[in-house]
Amino acid sequence: MRTLRTPVAIVGAGPAGLVLAHLLHLDGVRSVVLERRDRRYVEGRVRAGLLEQGTADLLRDSGVGGRMDREGQVHEGFELRFDAERHRLSTAELCGRTVTMYGQQEVVKDLIRARTEAGEPPYFGVDDIALGDLTGDTATLRCTLDGEPTVVRADFVAGCDGFHGVTRRGLPAGRPVQYERTYPFAWLGVLSAAPPAGEELIYAVHDRGFALHSMRSPTVSRLYLQVAPDEDLARWPDDRIRAELRTRLCPAGEPLHEGPLSRHGITSMRGFVVEPMQYGRLFLAGDAAHIVPPTAAKGLNLAVADAVVLARALAAWYGRGDREPLDAYTRTCLAHVWQAQEFSAWLTRLFHPHPGEDAMEARLRRARLRHLVTSRAAATDFAEHYTGRARGRVTARGGA
Amino acid sequence: MRTLRTPVAIVGAGPAGLVLAHLLHLDGVRSVVLERRDRRYVEGRVRAGLLEQGTADLLRDSGVGGRMDREGQVHEGFELRFDAERHRLSTAELCGRTVTMYGQQEVVKDLIRARTEAGEPPYFGVDDIALGDLTGDTATLRCTLDGEPTVVRADFVAGCDGFHGVTRRGLPAGRPVQYERTYPFAWLGVLSAAPPAGEELIYAVHDRGFALHSMRSPTVSRLYLQVAPDEDLARWPDDRIRAELRTRLCPAGEPLHEGPLSRHGITSMRGFVVEPMQYGRLFLAGDAAHIVPPTAAKGLNLAVADAVVLARALAAWYGRGDREPLDAYTRTCLAHVWQAQEFSAWLTRLFHPHPGEDAMEARLRRARLRHLVTSRAAATDFAEHYTGRARGRVTARGGA
Repeated sequence: MRTLRTPVAIVGAGPAGLVLAHLLHLDGVRSVVLERRDRRYVEGRVRAGLLEQGTADLLRDSGVGGRMDREGQVHEGFELRFDAERHRLSTAELCGRTVTMYGQQEVVKDLIRARTEAGEPPYFGVDDIALGDLTGDTATLRCTLDGEPTVVRADFVAGCDGFHGVTRRGLPAGRPVQYERTYPFAWLGVLSAAPPAGEELIYAVHDRGFALHSMRSPTVSRLYLQVAPDEDLARWPDDRIRAELRTRLCPAGEPLHEGPLSRHGITSMRGFVVEPMQYGRLFLAGDAAHIVPPTAAKGLNLAVADAVVLARALAAWYGRGDREPLDAYTRTCLAHVWQAQEFSAWLTRLFHPHPGEDAMEARLRRARLRHLVTSRAAATDFAEHYTGRARGRVTARGGA
Repeated sequence: MRTLRTPVAIVGAGPAGLVLAHLLHLDGVRSVVLERRDRRYVEGRVRAGLLEQGTADLLRDSGVGGRMDREGQVHEGFELRFDAERHRLSTAELCGRTVTMYGQQEVVKDLIRARTEAGEPPYFGVDDIALGDLTGDTATLRCTLDGEPTVVRADFVAGCDGFHGVTRRGLPAGRPVQYERTYPFAWLGVLSAAPPAGEELIYAVHDRGFALHSMRSPTVSRLYLQVAPDEDLARWPDDRIRAELRTRLCPAGEPLHEGPLSRHGITSMRGFVVEPMQYGRLFLAGDAAHIVPPTAAKGLNLAVADAVVLARALAAWYGRGDREPLDAYTRTCLAHVWQAQEFSAWLTRLFHPHPGEDAMEARLRRARLRHLVTSRAAATDFAEHYTGRARGRVTARGGA
């Protein structure tokens, strides 16, 4: 049985784990990232691609934003369509902030490269990860590393292995509270090999259901349709998808470029929070601790926000022996987690006709949409939520 | 059978009907107000007492705000309590607007006095009001006036007789759409012969239910408790009411003056909108067309808003033969009606733990409250909703 010693063992090479490892490195704290999947899988895993301004700033300030700045697209606003009307909301004008469209898998690639260049590449293909002691002088976990049974001994374990990961099981049974909500619909998503209809995202609220027009690049569009939660993809041949997109996105005959569709998939809509997010020497970050419905694209941004809080807390401990930020980790994170949950839930409610929704509720939703495009205060509140909060600055040498 | 001729027959001497008659008078349009109840009843009918700034301005500008300015209390903000914290929101500071506490029955008294002094007092005790023809050259309605069967012939009928009034039945069967929502709780209200705990309203959100501390005067408090919709007042002896008020309003031991309780009552919580608000020569205004839950105190203010729109439309018709504002009456009113419905529904959801609410929903409500007291944009949006929109100016001689 091999033993691996490290100050911080990070389970999962998604955005939370990789940002954490990267920021710790900048602060001179060594860590090891253990990832169950292989590198090709991790770098090809397509997820959201909307970076809040604070997330983009964090990547840039910490030295991994070069390709994002070259290849990502900064969006100063978005379009909202309802009642066959088009409204543009400029977040830049409302609150001086923007978002950057840059795929999560690209962020992951950039971070893996930075870790590799720093001489601390993640371990991929790590099997049988299981938590051991979490409350003694040293945290332990077991795994199979390069085919060899291994014990990892660390000061701290960061659980960054996603909603289906194993680390959340490290919370003592019965003690954590799990908050959960399942939405009565899902998103059918496709890639279309056609230029996007515009330069910004289009959110379309229609009586037949919500539709979202996003983009991957100047030649590839990403499109979503609200469908039933148990929807069968076989019931959605491409012609039906195209017709439904036109109906919902273009009620006034707006242009929509059409191309071959690919990557069909169904995304379920769920909200989830576990509390506390820590136990002994274990700290959860990102999807391991919380899930948001994709409507507001907060998942990746929350993962980064958690990683920043944890990196700072660990830096405070290693740098000056201050344990307080670690002790306060759950409280600090839940503040931004619940704000994002609330905005995501509110936006999901606003954009989607709910099955069984009565005429009163449908009219209240329309009144809410109307208010959003007529009240500057409401639009500003929305823009601040949408573009996110500042994460604090990261200097070249790290530190908060 | 007596015949009474008038340009505008107004059914109901509540705020909608009286403001309409008053504004028409200022514009030189004669009208007759027909009220089923006697004057003492109408002037003693205790309802809400929170006037949006636009409502107070309208009364003042139209010459009936003298006593309101002397006896009413201008509130520049309010207090919000939750999680044993106290937060003050200053609407004056957030959006430059205030509300005025002045009982609806006082507004009614002032308007009846103005109508009487103008030589056009309302008819009280009018029995058997029934609508006749509404689409011919003349509108007709029948009633018993001073004990005598009477036909009223008018160019227009204004239905201002409240939610349980008869005029809404004038809408053709099947054509109007009724939007309705019943909330799964009610408010138990009492007067307390004790000075208010503070100078402004206190909204208290507690796990056991919502509580509101309002006031009638410097020596009389008005208090409300969220209870079950079918609550039996007999289950609420005064000691229980006092204890529950202390628990919900004063979780941190804040002061609460106690005095003898009176005027116990249960207020149900309902949202209702009928569309259209007009048919032929009939126009509905106020509670006859829509009901809001009392949470945001919008009922009186909506009634005044409708009356202003109708008075202007009628003045346009009589003044320059312009029928367009009358034709647009429903559309014009529904814009403010749905905004108020939406805000009232949102606020009701925010303040009240719902029966059967799960832990996720309770936490999302708390996150929404937290956001309200930490985001200036959200607080500004709230303050604008709370103090209401401008109703436009009314000159001494009327006109828009």
